[in-house]
Amino acid sequence: MNQNILLKIQYIGTNYCGWQKQNNGKSIQQEIERAICEVTGKQVNLTGSGRTDSGVHALGQVANFVIDTTIPVEKIKYAINYYLPDDIRIIESKAVEDSFHARYSSKKKTYCYRINMNEIESPFEKNRSYFVGKELDLSKMKEQSKFLMGEHDFAAFQSEGSSVKTTVRTIYSLEINCINNIAEIHIIGNGFLYNMVRIIAGTLIEIGKGKDYSIVDILNTKQRENAGPTAPACGLFMEKVEYD
Amino acid sequence: MNQNILLKIQYIGTNYCGWQKQNNGKSIQQEIERAICEVTGKQVNLTGSGRTDSGVHALGQVANFVIDTTIPVEKIKYAINYYLPDDIRIIESKAVEDSFHARYSSKKKTYCYRINMNEIESPFEKNRSYFVGKELDLSKMKEQSKFLMGEHDFAAFQSEGSSVKTTVRTIYSLEINCINNIAEIHIIGNGFLYNMVRIIAGTLIEIGKGKDYSIVDILNTKQRENAGPTAPACGLFMEKVEYD
Repeated sequence: MNQNILLKIQYIGTNYCGWQKQNNGKSIQQEIERAICEVTGKQVNLTGSGRTDSGVHALGQVANFVIDTTIPVEKIKYAINYYLPDDIRIIESKAVEDSFHARYSSKKKTYCYRINMNEIESPFEKNRSYFVGKELDLSKMKEQSKFLMGEHDFAAFQSEGSSVKTTVRTIYSLEINCINNIAEIHIIGNGFLYNMVRIIAGTLIEIGKGKDYSIVDILNTKQRENAGPTAPACGLFMEKVEYD
Repeated sequence: MNQNILLKIQYIGTNYCGWQKQNNGKSIQQEIERAICEVTGKQVNLTGSGRTDSGVHALGQVANFVIDTTIPVEKIKYAINYYLPDDIRIIESKAVEDSFHARYSSKKKTYCYRINMNEIESPFEKNRSYFVGKELDLSKMKEQSKFLMGEHDFAAFQSEGSSVKTTVRTIYSLEINCINNIAEIHIIGNGFLYNMVRIIAGTLIEIGKGKDYSIVDILNTKQRENAGPTAPACGLFMEKVEYD
């Protein structure tokens, strides 16, 4: 009998071309589908809650697939992990309703963007944060970040290359904290446009360096060129995906 | 004119045979001496505050060397880092008195031992903590750890292979905290015997698993076989070395 199985996944994105299967490199999706096939002998289609680009990490990516298997669902994570490389791990596997779809059913997503403001890059932070190498003005960043909260047309904070029905999204929460000179931007929203978190991070970092950006003005123009640069992939973590 | 230069160093110990130069593998000391030679053209002897074994990490190892160079001391860290692999970084370089000796002048050392109690090992924790894969009884560990505080003969907590004048050491502080199911044992002492922190960690982990060890009894026997196993190197971090 077919079962719909949810996986919660952590990965270090550094050595992958991203979540989605591609012809020009190893993807996270492909590695997990291969491991599922090793365990069950069956080819499945794994649906992720959203794509992550090359170099982007996940602490709580969610995906689902449908399969007819006799392996207890709670144990399947161990079997899949056995066939996965060390930089990808299934941390949870459970049965969900047939109607569950990792992407369409998601209600909230949390991303974290990590910025290393230390003078020298610690080996432990290599590829796990964006190294800017100097102090940023966090109070200015916090001040401007408030204007991102709520429902807005985020067209100015979207990279080309995706077609979406609407560029209106809601940001429920945006917090900036700092430990050991590593600033973390935690951002919760109902969904994010292509590169939206990295463009928000890139814009806030410019503000932190002293650039006189107005988030309100950038939002109003709806033009990508008015926002800051897309911050590097290595600083971005998909933290959590929430469902009803 | 000769200058005595102090370096503060961070490294991921995973890919090295340890701090000290050896014939059978790459060492941290050798990598840094090579990088100094690339920068200055001179062979130096780098003195570390203490050796770390293969796989042990450092957040604040301290070393010194004597050299006649015209490069400004504060800038020398950047030049050395340029020639170092990504998993070793000099985070500070400064001139110190001729009498300063990284090992003999040290007054206090802080080590941290990290224990991953999550059910599945996160890719981000791989080689950066000891994966035990289940909850430990931290309150029992804290209770017994109190008996390690103060001045004791730690002969029972020493591996063979080192000759020291005395096995008496003082532990000033031992704290156990836990974030995201990663327990950290922070331990400050005037010095540590060979493998002392790893044997303390291994013994406390056994206590956390339910073993009925008495730290007082183990100390009194002064016999290594009465303490717990030496916990794996991957969980150990040399955090800080303090001088007058």
